[in-house]
Amino acid sequence: MAGNSIGKLFKLTTFGESHSDFIGGVIDGCPSGLRIDLDFIEKEVQRRKPLNENFSTQRKEEDVVEFVSGIENGTTLGSPIAFIVKNKNVKKQDYNHLKDLFRPSHGDFTYFNKYGIMASSGGGRASARETLSRVIGGAVAKLLLREYGVEVVGEIHSIGKWDYASQRDEIDKDLDKIVENGDSLGGIVSCRVKNCPIGLGEPVFDKLSADLAKAIMSIPATKGFEIGDGFDSTRKYGSEQLDNWNSDFSTKTNHSGGIQAGISNGMDITMKAGFKPIASLYRKVDSIDKEGNIHNVENSGRHDRCFIPRAVVIVEAMVALTVCDHLLRSFTNKINR
Amino acid sequence: MAGNSIGKLFKLTTFGESHSDFIGGVIDGCPSGLRIDLDFIEKEVQRRKPLNENFSTQRKEEDVVEFVSGIENGTTLGSPIAFIVKNKNVKKQDYNHLKDLFRPSHGDFTYFNKYGIMASSGGGRASARETLSRVIGGAVAKLLLREYGVEVVGEIHSIGKWDYASQRDEIDKDLDKIVENGDSLGGIVSCRVKNCPIGLGEPVFDKLSADLAKAIMSIPATKGFEIGDGFDSTRKYGSEQLDNWNSDFSTKTNHSGGIQAGISNGMDITMKAGFKPIASLYRKVDSIDKEGNIHNVENSGRHDRCFIPRAVVIVEAMVALTVCDHLLRSFTNKINR
Amino acid sequence: MAGNSIGKLFKLTTFGESHSDFIGGVIDGCPSGLRIDLDFIEKEVQRRKPLNENFSTQRKEEDVVEFVSGIENGTTLGSPIAFIVKNKNVKKQDYNHLKDLFRPSHGDFTYFNKYGIMASSGGGRASARETLSRVIGGAVAKLLLREYGVEVVGEIHSIGKWDYASQRDEIDKDLDKIVENGDSLGGIVSCRVKNCPIGLGEPVFDKLSADLAKAIMSIPATKGFEIGDGFDSTRKYGSEQLDNWNSDFSTKTNHSGGIQAGISNGMDITMKAGFKPIASLYRKVDSIDKEGNIHNVENSGRHDRCFIPRAVVIVEAMVALTVCDHLLRSFTNKINR
Amino acid sequence: MAGNSIGKLFKLTTFGESHSDFIGGVIDGCPSGLRIDLDFIEKEVQRRKPLNENFSTQRKEEDVVEFVSGIENGTTLGSPIAFIVKNKNVKKQDYNHLKDLFRPSHGDFTYFNKYGIMASSGGGRASARETLSRVIGGAVAKLLLREYGVEVVGEIHSIGKWDYASQRDEIDKDLDKIVENGDSLGGIVSCRVKNCPIGLGEPVFDKLSADLAKAIMSIPATKGFEIGDGFDSTRKYGSEQLDNWNSDFSTKTNHSGGIQAGISNGMDITMKAGFKPIASLYRKVDSIDKEGNIHNVENSGRHDRCFIPRAVVIVEAMVALTVCDHLLRSFTNKINR
Repeated sequence: MAGNSIGKLFKLTTFGESHSDFIGGVIDGCPSGLRIDLDFIEKEVQRRKPLNENFSTQRKEEDVVEFVSGIENGTTLGSPIAFIVKNKNVKKQDYNHLKDLFRPSHGDFTYFNKYGIMASSGGGRASARETLSRVIGGAVAKLLLREYGVEVVGEIHSIGKWDYASQRDEIDKDLDKIVENGDSLGGIVSCRVKNCPIGLGEPVFDKLSADLAKAIMSIPATKGFEIGDGFDSTRKYGSEQLDNWNSDFSTKTNHSGGIQAGISNGMDITMKAGFKPIASLYRKVDSIDKEGNIHNVENSGRHDRCFIPRAVVIVEAMVALTVCDHLLRSFTNKINR
Repeated sequence: MAGNSIGKLFKLTTFGESHSDFIGGVIDGCPSGLRIDLDFIEKEVQRRKPLNENFSTQRKEEDVVEFVSGIENGTTLGSPIAFIVKNKNVKKQDYNHLKDLFRPSHGDFTYFNKYGIMASSGGGRASARETLSRVIGGAVAKLLLREYGVEVVGEIHSIGKWDYASQRDEIDKDLDKIVENGDSLGGIVSCRVKNCPIGLGEPVFDKLSADLAKAIMSIPATKGFEIGDGFDSTRKYGSEQLDNWNSDFSTKTNHSGGIQAGISNGMDITMKAGFKPIASLYRKVDSIDKEGNIHNVENSGRHDRCFIPRAVVIVEAMVALTVCDHLLRSFTNKINR
Repeated sequence: MAGNSIGKLFKLTTFGESHSDFIGGVIDGCPSGLRIDLDFIEKEVQRRKPLNENFSTQRKEEDVVEFVSGIENGTTLGSPIAFIVKNKNVKKQDYNHLKDLFRPSHGDFTYFNKYGIMASSGGGRASARETLSRVIGGAVAKLLLREYGVEVVGEIHSIGKWDYASQRDEIDKDLDKIVENGDSLGGIVSCRVKNCPIGLGEPVFDKLSADLAKAIMSIPATKGFEIGDGFDSTRKYGSEQLDNWNSDFSTKTNHSGGIQAGISNGMDITMKAGFKPIASLYRKVDSIDKEGNIHNVENSGRHDRCFIPRAVVIVEAMVALTVCDHLLRSFTNKINR
Repeated sequence: MAGNSIGKLFKLTTFGESHSDFIGGVIDGCPSGLRIDLDFIEKEVQRRKPLNENFSTQRKEEDVVEFVSGIENGTTLGSPIAFIVKNKNVKKQDYNHLKDLFRPSHGDFTYFNKYGIMASSGGGRASARETLSRVIGGAVAKLLLREYGVEVVGEIHSIGKWDYASQRDEIDKDLDKIVENGDSLGGIVSCRVKNCPIGLGEPVFDKLSADLAKAIMSIPATKGFEIGDGFDSTRKYGSEQLDNWNSDFSTKTNHSGGIQAGISNGMDITMKAGFKPIASLYRKVDSIDKEGNIHNVENSGRHDRCFIPRAVVIVEAMVALTVCDHLLRSFTNKINR
């Protein structure tokens, strides 16, 4: 069943496999009259690119975003905003040795079982390539949020077992190590929504926290989501977790992460996204063929060793899309607008 | 905007405030021909009740579930299954001293700002009472899953900082302590889906993991969600996280938690839900009135001290609803069924 | 698949078979702060009742509507508004002679084939009884529209081949005739939305006209829908159909029926709904059993002979629900609200 | 709010204005394993082109459809199928004289009021150009239906006041007349679904007839919809409208048009779509500017005089999309598949 759209009022649909002619998306529900800052969108797209070769892929992605509808003279019309990006450097032969093999901890096996078709190469929809459409959609969402003064800011929280802010040396050592070993590293990305209006989130199932969780957990390789103090709060007493009031209705602490009962309370919304290390390694691993025979082969052609730096803008994008959707949804809360 | 439904093909809509005449729900999309085992549903409802007074509320919830449509001679008709449960013991005066006060870390403030109306008492839709409808809906989902051999099993993973399986004495001491101090405790519930068919989950946004995250994070007081190894996997090398194949396409380990690229792979689906301690304490806390004045008052009439035992069946219910929805969604994957 | 909800922002879900314990519905997405005028709702429910015995059913429907959630002190809370109505006088034996028979031009056969279950009696969800939930939902929608000055007014356009306004005598003769012959009559209901704001309707698929068509054509026994001049306009030249401008942006004529390109233009929205005569007759008809044998038997216990007068409020309800949904949807059209 | 998608399981989203760089669409939910016959799709696209100059536009639409994702080696992957078509011959100056004018009976005024932006030219989303995406989406739907033996066949029923089958001479005279007068003609398109499985359609709101009505009424210029005998049935007695049984569960007549109680009964599904004559005339008409001044000017650059022949394939497309969606929806009707 159709599952390639997210959002109810501000809705992004993405399309494209890692090796199709184009990838792209359609934003339906963006209000008219929004100025589209193409420079900003280009910068967001750049942020998704590898920082250096230790961290990430050597794949060249010269991503030129074409907006093909919904915008005239730099302003949204209220009609669907479609965009496409040409997939360059598509070399299916890079993956030929993997033909008919299911890699361990990859989507090959599940996709094949679901659809009855072996992805030709490179991951199809399961590829990180697909996240480019999310970043573009998220950039438009950020532009809309900016009109309302809302900002979404992500950062690296940790790489591997190391805190990013205070342990850069350890991280560098680990990165050297994974290059040497053909291994990979995951990490945690934190994200913060600043100046979010009070009242976003729709009880009881479409809570803002619930929709953020879904948006984040739809990013490839995510294994965990936390809002506010997250799992730490499970280990505290209730009295330690109360966010006491200031007289301006802000709170002295923000254990709850800006959301109470699924609805934003005006404090910063804080969350974390946990990513496992990528399963594609630069070494031989045991893949399996359709008959159940194990083959020890190179994993694939090219991929990130540690994509956490690239993940920041993707997390931001998913958060922006979600907050934007809920912002529009909130317009019908009360009868007296 | 409407947010009280979950699921696309197997859809539960819930209604009712903690102090309305009834709470209840409507299941739309349940296939016809399902035997409804009322004893099982009653048992599920019982599992949501307090185990003992240390743990939970003294509120008597003699919950009699009435199925009012969609079932004839014990079998579903394919039409919407509606159920209602009378709210007994509704004593609004228990909350009178809280009238016009926003409790700390509660939904009072966010609900008021969103809807412009002060919840009369007891939490309205934000109350734990609402989860009863989830348990009933989840019980029907479990019956449907049972037809396909799928089982959903939750258990307490931890209470406060203590592991449930190995540290019961510590937990008992902590429970004594919170009774003495009028405090509260949270914890973690784990859940496992056994015998899940391969192929459930819809790329790229409606991944099974993403929809499970949303379902779990829509439960009151949830602060975190993990699938498989969760945040632990962020601290490992990729080589440590590979789930290597057995020749029958099962895997030797299950770090990924039964889901690859958002699609079930046939292994047990494993996840965790983190709950903060409830914010209602049996002691005075600082609430705030609409003018911004702080009042140190008793928090409320009755509530759980530690609802983790009750949360197990609620987690299971949300998982069952989600898997059930995706099971039905999977029926249209391929052209040659 | 779930199909018992209508509307995206103002969403009505209905439940209940003709012979279940209750029928009812849930309105999700009604803004908070709406005064619920129970007298008005009661009057709407009364309008759905038979006018006289020639026209309609002898079935006594003493319909007491209970609103069980979502309303406090007569005002909506923003949470789901659930309502139930007890089904009285449920005598399943009235239909016993029809057990295992498919009546001609009824839903018996299609329901059985779809769901694999023989409706016990009286039509199940296909019964006119279900429309009561629509009328109640529609009444709430009308109250919301009233806040915005919008009014929905239906009337009988024709009964059988006779124009209702000018041919009452002919109609009375026909009604006598169908009583005598155990026959039935259909007709056409027209409906008008007055003072509809400009700008409702969402291109390109959720046009206001398209959603009105769906809403109307979901009423039992509808066979046709027209907006504005409808099929008559197909027989005119374009020059005869232009709605020329007045300088206040109203139009001198209203051939288009208040909608241009799927969006309301501020003129009255005018439409017609065509109903076939009910298939249940007070005479023997040829029904068929599961083995394909024809049985000439009485059609059923009780039913309308001509339900057109009752249909007016049902048509209005569906129109009100649709306009209400689009009113809320229009709140996110532009960025500068 | 987002309104550019149709279908729940087989979902088409379209994008593109008449003068944007591309128009196109995304089909989400098409099962994997469907062979895509590009020749067939090309033929469908050709059927949408003008038959001769009397009938239709001189605009050259050399429409080359590019499928950019979701298909590999001619077979669907189960992922979203995106397609784009370059808009050629975009001459915005053709419409310059209409800048800032609202044409009578056009979407200019309603679009401007809804979105606050004056469509630059040519109708934007309201243009007939948009229907090309429907035809392409519909062609894919037809390919899927073909796998199940279902066929969708439309034809011209009438042009202006003349029956198409028996009055071709009158029609030719009328066409000559509108060319001479710069006028336009509408008409009626009938459509038939052959070999539709029994059981499609979801009570009570997503009836097959209701969703067909919506799909048809979302086509530009539609003013009426009928199923089976349509409005004619309102003028008959019930006894004249019964579809009596054959012993194989087919019916001797098909007044109901293949649908009972919103669910297909296995007979041909028959319907009609009524189109008003296009409002763009080849003569001066009274348009209005934003200040309310009337201007008698040429209506626009190029357009159809009678688009009924082109409408056939568009009607078929909308019907195919709807039936296809309901076919997939029907897969979850019963528990024992």
